[in-house]
Amino acid sequence: MSGPSWEKLAAWQIADAVSCGEVSAHEVVTQVLQTVRSRDANINAYTDLTERRALEEAAAIDARRMRGEPMPALAGVPYAVKNLFDVEGLPTLAGGHRGRAGPAKSNDATLVTRAADAGACLIGTLNMDAYAYGFTTENSFHGVTRNPHDPLRVAGGSSGGSGAAVAADMCAFSLGSDTNGSIRVPSSFCGVFGLKPTFGGLSRGGSRPFVHNIDHVGPFARGTRDLARVFDVLVGLDPRDHACSRAAGPSVETGVMRAAQEGISGLRVARLNGYFDRWAGPDARTASRSVAMMFSAQEELDLPDVAAARGAGFVITASESGELYRGELQAHYEDMEPLNRDRMLAGSLLPATWYVQAQRFRQQFLRQMLALFERFDLLVAPATPCVATEIGQQWLDLPGGRVPTRPSIGLLTQPISFIGLPVVAVPLPTANGMPIGVQLIAAPGREDIALAAAAVLEAGGHTFVPRVSPPEPYRGSALYENR
Amino acid sequence: MSGPSWEKLAAWQIADAVSCGEVSAHEVVTQVLQTVRSRDANINAYTDLTERRALEEAAAIDARRMRGEPMPALAGVPYAVKNLFDVEGLPTLAGGHRGRAGPAKSNDATLVTRAADAGACLIGTLNMDAYAYGFTTENSFHGVTRNPHDPLRVAGGSSGGSGAAVAADMCAFSLGSDTNGSIRVPSSFCGVFGLKPTFGGLSRGGSRPFVHNIDHVGPFARGTRDLARVFDVLVGLDPRDHACSRAAGPSVETGVMRAAQEGISGLRVARLNGYFDRWAGPDARTASRSVAMMFSAQEELDLPDVAAARGAGFVITASESGELYRGELQAHYEDMEPLNRDRMLAGSLLPATWYVQAQRFRQQFLRQMLALFERFDLLVAPATPCVATEIGQQWLDLPGGRVPTRPSIGLLTQPISFIGLPVVAVPLPTANGMPIGVQLIAAPGREDIALAAAAVLEAGGHTFVPRVSPPEPYRGSALYENR
Repeated sequence: MSGPSWEKLAAWQIADAVSCGEVSAHEVVTQVLQTVRSRDANINAYTDLTERRALEEAAAIDARRMRGEPMPALAGVPYAVKNLFDVEGLPTLAGGHRGRAGPAKSNDATLVTRAADAGACLIGTLNMDAYAYGFTTENSFHGVTRNPHDPLRVAGGSSGGSGAAVAADMCAFSLGSDTNGSIRVPSSFCGVFGLKPTFGGLSRGGSRPFVHNIDHVGPFARGTRDLARVFDVLVGLDPRDHACSRAAGPSVETGVMRAAQEGISGLRVARLNGYFDRWAGPDARTASRSVAMMFSAQEELDLPDVAAARGAGFVITASESGELYRGELQAHYEDMEPLNRDRMLAGSLLPATWYVQAQRFRQQFLRQMLALFERFDLLVAPATPCVATEIGQQWLDLPGGRVPTRPSIGLLTQPISFIGLPVVAVPLPTANGMPIGVQLIAAPGREDIALAAAAVLEAGGHTFVPRVSPPEPYRGSALYENR
Repeated sequence: MSGPSWEKLAAWQIADAVSCGEVSAHEVVTQVLQTVRSRDANINAYTDLTERRALEEAAAIDARRMRGEPMPALAGVPYAVKNLFDVEGLPTLAGGHRGRAGPAKSNDATLVTRAADAGACLIGTLNMDAYAYGFTTENSFHGVTRNPHDPLRVAGGSSGGSGAAVAADMCAFSLGSDTNGSIRVPSSFCGVFGLKPTFGGLSRGGSRPFVHNIDHVGPFARGTRDLARVFDVLVGLDPRDHACSRAAGPSVETGVMRAAQEGISGLRVARLNGYFDRWAGPDARTASRSVAMMFSAQEELDLPDVAAARGAGFVITASESGELYRGELQAHYEDMEPLNRDRMLAGSLLPATWYVQAQRFRQQFLRQMLALFERFDLLVAPATPCVATEIGQQWLDLPGGRVPTRPSIGLLTQPISFIGLPVVAVPLPTANGMPIGVQLIAAPGREDIALAAAAVLEAGGHTFVPRVSPPEPYRGSALYENR
């Protein structure tokens, strides 16, 4: 096949090319499916392919164009979703044992329906930590998802497949979920852009919950404009998710394009230090400092209650997931993920007073943080303590001390999602060639500010660009076998 | 003193008379204070009098009138508040041991400020079950509050003082709180009108919480128009209560006056049977049936999940109150109310999975009930299983079985407040002369409908009127000693 490598282009570029007839949706989707076939054996981002659906959706878009109909915003754009989103005809795995996933779904999740209505073509579903409880996508049932930039490293989690598939050009954008960091961590590790919206900002209708009171869903892409366009397509109220409180509004993409061209004037930026430096290694601190410098940050802030916010986030996470899975824990413990079933079981035994106290603290902490947003538009903090960790790595050595890897990678993301603030994770380069993410954190409902700031960084050439294309195929070696 | 007995009149009548100079606020307040002094030794509704404040507030109103200023909606109206509302200069007891109440408050609760701004004069604070956990106002620290219509019976609770003070003409209106029935139960037992607004309908700022996620506050009065006028004065957003979501809007009193004169046409009414008949004695069933008949109710509804709703309400109540008081339970158990400290301690040991499950069920049950309000404007159910119980009564014998009195009087109110629906408790007469309340239940935010319906019943002469004035003073007897 000659011509451009469509699988490497941005979603908006693909949609534009398909809309003006420069390429057919069929050709784009075919090329991406071929990339997946040649590359995913070594990355393991996908758990199921929906090849037939993708080709049908592409054919429908091509037919619409032939009839001269107006083209939708994501015409012909190949995408994939974390396997906790319902997809018609597939059981919803949520990272769990296939035998426990239940029957095939008869409907799509709300966001899948909206993406399809906007002309996007679903390539398949993506690997994740079991039940969304983890930060490495080391999944005992479906194998580890490898980092496209280094196959000995993890892709991050729990939306590891979503980060890796976008990073390895196996789709133009993907959807994931983020309770304690599950979008921002894989964004950081895989070197892609991720948007965790405000709590209630995008509908979770038809997705498998993990922690109902903290779960968020959002997109991954290779650039800010794609995040904005996908957000514009997906946003809107939904009776299937009562926590969804964001009605469709003015285009966020327009603001992102303007910011990329003209910059943003008068942005009041603060960098979070204290806790966020104590639990960040040198790469993470360098990245957050350089972003703060690019925005001429006015202040460094040492927030007092961040560690408590992480603890409270854990209490709510453990309690709600323990409640959600308590039947399965009782009846099918042996079929549950060994890497987290003990934590879920422990969570199901916590006292209600802890849970109630954690929820009460959440309100206090939110009020503290809201007061900050009267002085600042944007807060900057690292997304992960370090670049992608190695597969099977047990410990993280950080300035604050040695901590176990799997539950600790979300140290820096967890206090932010706990109170539902919107965050764009922006990937930056590090000296060793691996990416690391920085969180651009805005006030509730201000995805536009975080996205515009990310666009400025991207337009300035400050964000991560892989030094070389991902090697394909990776060398086959026992070391690389899926765990 | 000659002239009318101001203490017997409605709040709106007093405000009108004060506003046009027919009587001074000073005279009204003086007369009410004298009534309290002569009557409350035998009822025990008040825990603290704020005589000096009442006289100062009255003087201020009278001075404003003398200066020809416009008169506010509650000019010169004597009122009192459950002792869980902050009152400047008093410690907030919340029914607990005086030694544990902390220092005097330096600010009023939001609703007290709003009542004062509307010209009302605060007579004092009112007795309640300790911590608002109970339905009888049998308080080991402050004594039992007696029923003004029969001193051997309780006034109901937990806002027993608020119900009794209004019934015994010791104030024109009062404020109480209702988590599981604490406004509707004393309304029923004391034969007065009570409004439990929609959850979030009136601000709880500056009131002592009991169960943050279910607590409501609202007024008691001797008629519907007073409830409406007080609601109009008190409603409005408040940064001190983040759950308060009702902005001030059009006058509810206007609609109530219209309904009282013209009736309401096209009101779609259903009576709740099933659970609500199973746990109601003959007086309660008769009352709810006769109200349903007056409104030509179209249907009787047997809702499936009401018992589960009550159970879930108890789980949330026990968990949150156990969390709120856990420090005191650990450090000062002996100083806590013997009638409920065991329940609070047990609540503090419940597992978080129960709490999370109860909150999840709450959303489901709310959705079920919201669907009903597409077919009906008003639901009718008894407020209490029977008329006021005797002081110290251990058991209730109901069609559904024998149950312990204190935790069971709220059987019929608890499932409704659990999901925050607005209710007006309307008192009806029974054959033995004691009142009993009926709940008029509307959709969230539709206090206007419940109040208008109550006004129709009141205008039709269907509501409770005491056969004789409360005896004063009650005979002194060992039986009547405060427990």
